[in-house]
Parts: sequence; structure tokens; C-alpha cells
Amino acid sequence: MSSNYAAQFNELKQRLQEVYDLNRVAALLHWDQTTYMPPGGAPARGRQTALISKLAQEKFVDPEIGRLLDALRPYEESLPYDSDEASIIRVTRREYERAVRIPPEFMAMFRQHVSVTYTVWTKARPANDFSMVLPYLEKTLAYSRQLAEFFPEHEHIADPLIDFSDYGMRVSTLRPLFAQLRDALVPLVEAITSQPPADDSCLHQHFPEEKQLAFGLEVIKRFGYDFDRGRQDKTHHPFMTKFSLGDVRITTRVKENDLSEAMFSTFHEAGHALYEQGIKMDYEGTPLASGTSSGVHESQSRLWENYVGRSRPFWEHFYPQLQATFPEQLGNVSLETFYRAINKVQRSLIRTDADEITYNLHVIIRFELELDLLEGNLSLAELPQAWRERYREYLGIEPPDDKDGVLQDVHWYSGTIGGAFQGYTLGNIMAAQFFEKALEEHPEIEDEMRRGEFGTLHTWLKENIYQHGAKYTPAELLKRVTGQDLTIKPYIRYLRRKYGELYEI
Amino acid sequence: MSSNYAAQFNELKQRLQEVYDLNRVAALLHWDQTTYMPPGGAPARGRQTALISKLAQEKFVDPEIGRLLDALRPYEESLPYDSDEASIIRVTRREYERAVRIPPEFMAMFRQHVSVTYTVWTKARPANDFSMVLPYLEKTLAYSRQLAEFFPEHEHIADPLIDFSDYGMRVSTLRPLFAQLRDALVPLVEAITSQPPADDSCLHQHFPEEKQLAFGLEVIKRFGYDFDRGRQDKTHHPFMTKFSLGDVRITTRVKENDLSEAMFSTFHEAGHALYEQGIKMDYEGTPLASGTSSGVHESQSRLWENYVGRSRPFWEHFYPQLQATFPEQLGNVSLETFYRAINKVQRSLIRTDADEITYNLHVIIRFELELDLLEGNLSLAELPQAWRERYREYLGIEPPDDKDGVLQDVHWYSGTIGGAFQGYTLGNIMAAQFFEKALEEHPEIEDEMRRGEFGTLHTWLKENIYQHGAKYTPAELLKRVTGQDLTIKPYIRYLRRKYGELYEI
Repeated sequence: MSSNYAAQFNELKQRLQEVYDLNRVAALLHWDQTTYMPPGGAPARGRQTALISKLAQEKFVDPEIGRLLDALRPYEESLPYDSDEASIIRVTRREYERAVRIPPEFMAMFRQHVSVTYTVWTKARPANDFSMVLPYLEKTLAYSRQLAEFFPEHEHIADPLIDFSDYGMRVSTLRPLFAQLRDALVPLVEAITSQPPADDSCLHQHFPEEKQLAFGLEVIKRFGYDFDRGRQDKTHHPFMTKFSLGDVRITTRVKENDLSEAMFSTFHEAGHALYEQGIKMDYEGTPLASGTSSGVHESQSRLWENYVGRSRPFWEHFYPQLQATFPEQLGNVSLETFYRAINKVQRSLIRTDADEITYNLHVIIRFELELDLLEGNLSLAELPQAWRERYREYLGIEPPDDKDGVLQDVHWYSGTIGGAFQGYTLGNIMAAQFFEKALEEHPEIEDEMRRGEFGTLHTWLKENIYQHGAKYTPAELLKRVTGQDLTIKPYIRYLRRKYGELYEI
Repeated sequence: MSSNYAAQFNELKQRLQEVYDLNRVAALLHWDQTTYMPPGGAPARGRQTALISKLAQEKFVDPEIGRLLDALRPYEESLPYDSDEASIIRVTRREYERAVRIPPEFMAMFRQHVSVTYTVWTKARPANDFSMVLPYLEKTLAYSRQLAEFFPEHEHIADPLIDFSDYGMRVSTLRPLFAQLRDALVPLVEAITSQPPADDSCLHQHFPEEKQLAFGLEVIKRFGYDFDRGRQDKTHHPFMTKFSLGDVRITTRVKENDLSEAMFSTFHEAGHALYEQGIKMDYEGTPLASGTSSGVHESQSRLWENYVGRSRPFWEHFYPQLQATFPEQLGNVSLETFYRAINKVQRSLIRTDADEITYNLHVIIRFELELDLLEGNLSLAELPQAWRERYREYLGIEPPDDKDGVLQDVHWYSGTIGGAFQGYTLGNIMAAQFFEKALEEHPEIEDEMRRGEFGTLHTWLKENIYQHGAKYTPAELLKRVTGQDLTIKPYIRYLRRKYGELYEI
């Protein structure tokens, strides 16, 4: 590295670190807001978060960063594609070029609109009144299109919106892939739900909060979650957040009458956190210090929640411990009954309560409706009706009202229409691809799980996925790790094997 | 207000609000660091706090703020001195003119030095080795003088340093005042400690943490601390902090073998918090939204901790409740025994453990030594010896080592030499002036305390002190509220009355 490049690269990294730190500070403001902040703190908190985010944005689109990126191009081209330095420059350039194409005044207007829309939604949902949000959604759709049009080279108008969270994923790939998945899942759900439903009453007894939390923490410690670099607190909606690579926290929510709630949300968020905690420490302060996409992130939360935490080998080890924690509630419940209960499949209305299989149908409905809206093939006024029809078609049930229909998810009411949902199902699909590969290379993983050990799996994930942070795009990572492109085959194999053992399908 | 002034005043306020919010965000970073942050978060947290503080400072010394202050001078002069608008402009100007006289490079160097010194001190204190910190202190003293010399119009070199926390207080006032106080206290301590010491063994039983915390919270709720705009968490060193006028938090520390620890620190920090919670909401985001000085702040923490929380009327109401909380420990301990225990006076080595009377002697020793050092009448090499001599003279005991002598307080090792200590004793003196005035105007305050009620006192403090925030200087406020200048007479009256009842003096 010539000393000139060294100085420029160093300056770039220093500037990026300030942007990174400001964004991490904004994350702390949000964490505090949802965990410990007293109600009186709300007005100032909104203002403070907006200020810090604005400063981060201003510092990132500084033309000096563009100048440094230009100056460093020959240096980047002289390095191997996957060297850390080339990757920092490449990923920064990609994000910088995207950021400078969106006028700050547009973002300010859009954020303002979104914040109003969100408030209206918080009233419209309990009132079961879609018409309240309809005019706001019209504007959201217009803004979403306008945002996409800042990237006029797009192939499909949703692609730039998808790029924000799942870089490089295209409608031309996702639409047929999700349709294929839907066509596989609909008959699977049909076959399962035509049989007697699993009895999950064992999960709906009284489980004291403290013991639930202690059990969850014990499990994720075994997963490898590092409590010297993290902690768990309670919030209304569970999430994972990061204040640095040395401080990756999770939150959960406890229901004393539902053992699944805190437990699986803890495993899920721990999966997200294991990804972030596993990123190479050298990347701290750069755009590489982050999971590479929503979809890959969700693949890790799902992998630990479902592929591990809802598996039979896992519970062969942990169920006796869970019984010892709740002897009165579970002492007389067999492992088989419990295992069937936590894997109960049912047609339901609410995405966030859905099981491992039907969850995807909820997501695909939203994804398809987003595309229809953006393409102009569906009007927002028709959306509630289209929602009901799609639910009847894919899930065989129909929401009795909009509250548990089109108004149920916050996404469209707090962001763009487009790009909001694909990551969830991409996560399920990729989790299967990664997990199948891990088992292929290390068949001993299942036996380790039977002993409550996760070292081989965790190490494999760190080496193959976590350490790289955002160095590779989702498609690159998938290819590199599994040798394959995006495919639903491993996912379908996984579902058929697991549920084939539970039901006649 | 002409529309031009209106626009300029508005712009000034907007800029001030950003500075304020950045400083509040830095406070949250610190709060989290001392309450919940896992150890791995430390390196990034230091960096993030430094960044946010730097941004706040840069935004405050922006020449545009100077320009607005100049433009607004005629407007300010057209308004009554104590109008909110004139006060915002006046206090901002005072702080701006101070801030722009300190070169940012100097502050950066000084902060860097202080951070290294602090780390050395954390090793020197347990090692009982003053020589480790000596070279660093030499530099601190030089920096402190240099900092003061940015204000060459000073009367005494310590005055500019005192100004940072107790604006307008002068060595020419404080030195004789503190000497007068010392001369009154030394014989008082002599008289008390020549009598049999109070038995405080009742405080040193086992008191479960949870019950201690609950009792403290119950009391400060009665004081008027608003939990919708605050909360209490645990830290190693208790403090009060503020993220907005709607979010003023306190922290405490619990010792299960010492009932005083958490209880009185809770009352103390609640006193600070009541001050901040009582500031007029309109001041949010301006330099008025803060207590006016260290001394006045300390007067409020001391007032609630000692004048209320260590008083007989207070315990006539609360002692039966405390006994009910800890029946095994206190059921057979009389109110009189308990009251004497919490007001035990003794010669001791450690400032933070000292009682209401001797506390001031600890502070005065430090204040006098600071002045001697700054004046060049004492060298740092001689400091440990001077410390011992002064302790023998004022407190009648001598520290056996530097660990519990000159190395005991963090102040000189984490900031300037000069201006660090006067606020504590100013607080005690002013608390007496304020409290005497409150009782004079509302003699019913004592009877209310006997009923566990604090409404009259709290309302009087809000109206006379809290609501004004930093509008008045400490001297102005004192004069306005009590009609007097700084005087130790009420304080001595208070001590003689209270301790005259407990001891023969």
C-alpha cells in the first residue's frame, strides 16, 4: 500500500467509524426507549433519535467520502476481491452511491409522512378501520414509487426497495421462487391440517416469568451467545440490537400463560445476535460490521429457533431440564407430546403467531400484494378484499375483519410498500440451505445437539457466515458456502422429513 | 418582538436545542455504561461518548451562534432582565463567551491527559503509591493554570475554574467564609466527640436489598419525585442524570449490611432530581434547563437528604414504617436509638462516609489545598504531607496512608485542580439558608413532615428555586429567595439546634 493510499484509506475508515458510531448511538436511544425509558422521556427521545440519524446521514453523504472512494479505486482494483480492504471500499462505495441518489429533502418528507402514518395506524387497527389509513397509504405508495425511481435502471420497480435490505435480490428471481414454494406448501398444509391437530395445551399453563427467563438464558449460553458482549432485557416486541461488536443485545417478551412466547423469541433473537457477535472484530466501525442482509440475518434467527430449537435432538437433551424447571406443569407431559405441541401446524390469521410452515404463506401473500400495488394491478382501496381472497386461497381461512387482516403488520404503516417482507421467507429458505450443508460436512452436529452441545455448528457458522459480516452479498455468500444459488429444495426436504415423521403426508 | 428578532431568536433556540440534545445523548451513553452495559461494550462506548461530546461542543462554538447573540443584543436589552427570552440570551452569551475562549486543541489535549491520569490513579490508589500519579498531577496543575489563564481578567487564578461549576463565586468570598465555618466546626466536633459516641450497630445488620430499595422508592415518591419522568437503577457510584426535562433518572448502591448506604443516597439523588424535574418545561432545550450551579444543586440534595431525611419529624412518621419493613432487625430498636445512629458524628478519614458536620472539614481541607497549589505556596510533592497535617489540625486524626488520604477522591485525577470541591460545602451552607427561609414562611412544614407529607416544602422549593433553572446566578437566586447573601449563620444555627439536642455542646 503506497503511503498515500494508506493515508486515504485511513481517513475513509475514520469517517466511516463516526457514521457507524452515530448509528450505534441511535440504536441505544431506541433500546432505552423500549426497555427502561419512563413515559415522560418520549417527546425528547424522538427528537434526539432524529438528530443523531440526521448527523449520521450527513456525515455519510459528505462529498469527501466520494472523493476518497474515487481516489482509492486503483488501490481497490489492485487487491483481491475478498481482501478486507477491497471489501470495505467496495461495500462503502455501493452504499454511498445508493445514499447520494436520494435527496435529503425527500427523505425528510418521507420520514415525516411515515411518522404520521404510524400514529394513524395505531388508532386505525384497534378501530378496525382501514379507511382511516387509506389516504396515508396512497401517499406511502407514491413515495415508495418515487424512492424506487431514484434508481431508474431497475428491472422491476420493487427491486430498488428490496435492495435496501436484501441487496441484489430481484423480483425476477423471487416471484417464481416464492410461487414455487407456495405451490409446495399449500398441499402440505392441506395434508397436515386434514389430520387431528396436535394438542398444545401443555404450553398454556402458568409458567412463572423468572424461571422462563432463566431457562432461555441457560440455553442461549449453550448456543454460544457471549454475555460479556451482550445481555437480555424485556420489551413489548422482541428484537436484537448492536451498539458495537462488543455489545450485541437482545430483548424478549414473556407470557406467563404461554411457554412458547419468551422461549422461541429468545432463541430467535439469540440467532441474530450470534451472527453479529461472530463478525470479525477488525471490521468494527466499517460497513462490513453487520449481517449482510435481512434474509441472511433471518436465516440465522430461524436456524437457531427452528432447525435447532424446535428439533427433536435438541429437546432430547433439554426437555428433562425443562421438566425439572417446571415439574408441576410438565412432569407428566411426555417428550413426544411436548415436541408435537411446539411444532403444531395450523391455519391461522396472524403472521407473527404462525408455525414454521404456514408462516411463509403469510409472507408470500404480503410480497405478492406489494408487487401488485407497485405494478398498479391492484388499488389500495381494493387491498383489504384482495387480502381476504389471498388468505382464503393460500391458507384456507379468511379474516373476519381488517384488524386481523390487512391492518395487522406495522411494516406498510411505518415504511415503504415494497421490500418489507421478502427477508422472512428468504431466511427460511436459506436457513435450510445452510443447515443442510453444515450437516453434510458435520453429521455429528445432531449427536452434539442430543448432548446439549453446539460447538461444531456454531464454529461452522462463524467460519462460513458470521465472520464475513457484509463482505459478501447474500447471493455470493450462499454460493460460496453451499455451492448453490437460492433454491427451495433443501427447505422442502427439511419440511417433508420433519413433518413427515409427525404427520401422514 | 419584531419578526426579524423572532426569526433570529428561533434560530438560536433551534441551534441550542441540538447542543442540548447531543449533551443529553452523551448522558444516556454514560448512564447505560454504568447500569447495564456488558464489559465488551467499553472500548466503543468511550469512543462514542467522545464523538457526541465533540459534536455538541462544535455546534455550540459555531460562529453563527455568536452572530445571533450579537444580533439579539438590542432585543435582550429591550426586555426585563428576568424575562425568559432575555435570560435565555444572557445565559447563552455567558456560556458561549466562556466556551470560545478555550481553544478546542487545548481541550482535546487536556481531556486526553485526564483520561490517562484517571487510569493511572485507578492503579495508584490500591497500590497506595502517590509517586505513580505525581508526574501526571504536575501536568494537571499546569493545564489547570493554563485553563484559568484563558480568562486573564480573573481576580484569583482559581476563580475561572470555580466559575465552571459555581458561576460568580470568588475565592475572595469563599476563603474567609470557609475559614469562618471551619473555626465554628472544629470546636463543635471537639465537643461532640469528647462525649460517648452514638451506637449505630442497629444500621449494620442484614437488610435484604429488595426491601431497602422498595422503602427508598416509597419515600421519594412521597417527596414528589415523579416516576413518570424518572426511574432508579443500581450503579457502583450513585448519581442523578437527565436525558430531557421529561426523563430525570437517579441511581443508587445497596449494601445489605448497611442500611444508611442506599437510603440516604436515594434521598440525596432524589433531591438533585426534584430540582431538575421542577424546572419550567418551556426551558427544555435551552441553557436554562439545568440547575444553576453545583452548590445550589448540592443544596437541594442535602436539603432532602439531611434537613428532611435525617430529621426527627421525618422519622416520627417513617420509622414505624421502616420497622414494619424490617421487623426482625428494628422491631426492638427505639426511634431515639435509630435517630442518634443516623446522626452519629465521628472523626473519620473518608469524605464520602462522613457525617453532616465533619463532611465540611473534609471539603475545606481540599479547597484550601487546591488554592495553595494553584498559588504556588505548596508543591505537589509536599501534598501528601500537607494533607496529613491538615487532617490532624481540623479533624484530629491522620490518615495512616495515602490510599485513604490524598488518593481517596477521584476529582483531581479526573479533572482540574481547582474548582472541584467548593460546591459540596456551598450546598450545605445554602441548604440551611433556603430551609430556614422555607420554615420561616411555612412553619407548618415540620408538622407536615410528621405526617409524611412534603407538599408545602416541595411547592415552595419549586416556586422559589426549581422552576427558574439556570435563569439566576447562585448569588442572585440566594438574594432573591432569602433576601441575604451567602452566610453561614443559618447553617450554624441549624447544627447547634439539631446537635445541641443530641449532645451537650
